[in-house]
Amino acid sequence: MGPTITAFAAAPDRGRGLARDMAVRWALEEVGQPHAVLAVPLADLKGAAHLARHPFGQIPTYADEAVSLFESGAIVHHIASRWPGLWPADPAARARAVQWMFAAQATIEPPIVEWSMARLVESGEPWFAARQPLLERRVHDRLGQLAAHLGPRHWLDGDFSAGDLLMVCVLRRLAGSGLLDEQSALAAYVARGEGRPAFARALAAQAALFAATT
Amino acid sequence: MGPTITAFAAAPDRGRGLARDMAVRWALEEVGQPHAVLAVPLADLKGAAHLARHPFGQIPTYADEAVSLFESGAIVHHIASRWPGLWPADPAARARAVQWMFAAQATIEPPIVEWSMARLVESGEPWFAARQPLLERRVHDRLGQLAAHLGPRHWLDGDFSAGDLLMVCVLRRLAGSGLLDEQSALAAYVARGEGRPAFARALAAQAALFAATT
Repeated sequence: MGPTITAFAAAPDRGRGLARDMAVRWALEEVGQPHAVLAVPLADLKGAAHLARHPFGQIPTYADEAVSLFESGAIVHHIASRWPGLWPADPAARARAVQWMFAAQATIEPPIVEWSMARLVESGEPWFAARQPLLERRVHDRLGQLAAHLGPRHWLDGDFSAGDLLMVCVLRRLAGSGLLDEQSALAAYVARGEGRPAFARALAAQAALFAATT
Repeated sequence: MGPTITAFAAAPDRGRGLARDMAVRWALEEVGQPHAVLAVPLADLKGAAHLARHPFGQIPTYADEAVSLFESGAIVHHIASRWPGLWPADPAARARAVQWMFAAQATIEPPIVEWSMARLVESGEPWFAARQPLLERRVHDRLGQLAAHLGPRHWLDGDFSAGDLLMVCVLRRLAGSGLLDEQSALAAYVARGEGRPAFARALAAQAALFAATT
């Protein structure tokens, strides 16, 4: 029996692959591992049954016969450790893939989430418009540095890795915002990630779950 | 020859162990690995020499004979992979230690940084006071969930691990704020981390560097 993951029932993003189960689904598709998906309604996230899986009441979670995990970066790390296909065998190159996993979640994602949460939660506040340039500049500066690193590379370090997988998922949160389009190299990088067959399978599965739970 | 890391010359926190080299120093002390420290002045962070080490122009970085890395979580992961002492040998327990490393940096740290950055950058803005309850509630909610998980445990999952090391470093950013003191179990957890001899050695080294570069 394969692993079981959790995802949103009736996901707020309407199944467009922006929820955090996308990275885990994509990773499982890259390594070719069949898996079951348990849909958790939003109303149940902070209930006792789900908090036993995830102390912060979020999705995704992951369980196989040996371990139960939460935190999408850590789940992708576990999948990459368990099945071949998501990072190189060479220890130094693997350490750099892990570096990009942390960079995606700890350096690039926070200003993007801050910017998007302000739009979601504070758009009616009197200060919203005045703060936007500050939030946009933080995202803009990070994207500029990331684009400078990427340069003409196809992926962040050698072949596609779990680091690229998480980075593409993080950058997809900016889809349609203009902030990503300012950096054409990064927009092309995201498009390369989205062009992988495993990504397409994961996205289709997320859309199908949305359709089945609404 | 041991690894070389970078840290701030004349650190903005005045050597109180709040800069991100603290986690790397502490990890190296836990595994007993001597290392060299290169002090980078603030003015040089975005210069070409340092950007070659770190594409986002931050500290810390790490270099040994085989690999050069940035991103403190990834460096601690590399140290834990290379030397014994920072996570268990059992693969499931190790996956859970990695889970807590990501949780520290991707789930607990962002609302803490957002709260502390607002105090640093936006305290003179007309909206500062009105936004404070929103930012404090985000931190408060996460700390409550973390405290509920910790319960009577000494560490997040079994013995002290790299997950605890990163989590204690993240929570220390709240020192003296009241937000941490609301959760006495977390305040005691941070104190347990700070009580480790390896932590004390790392803190002393950070303070000594500040004294030597100011």
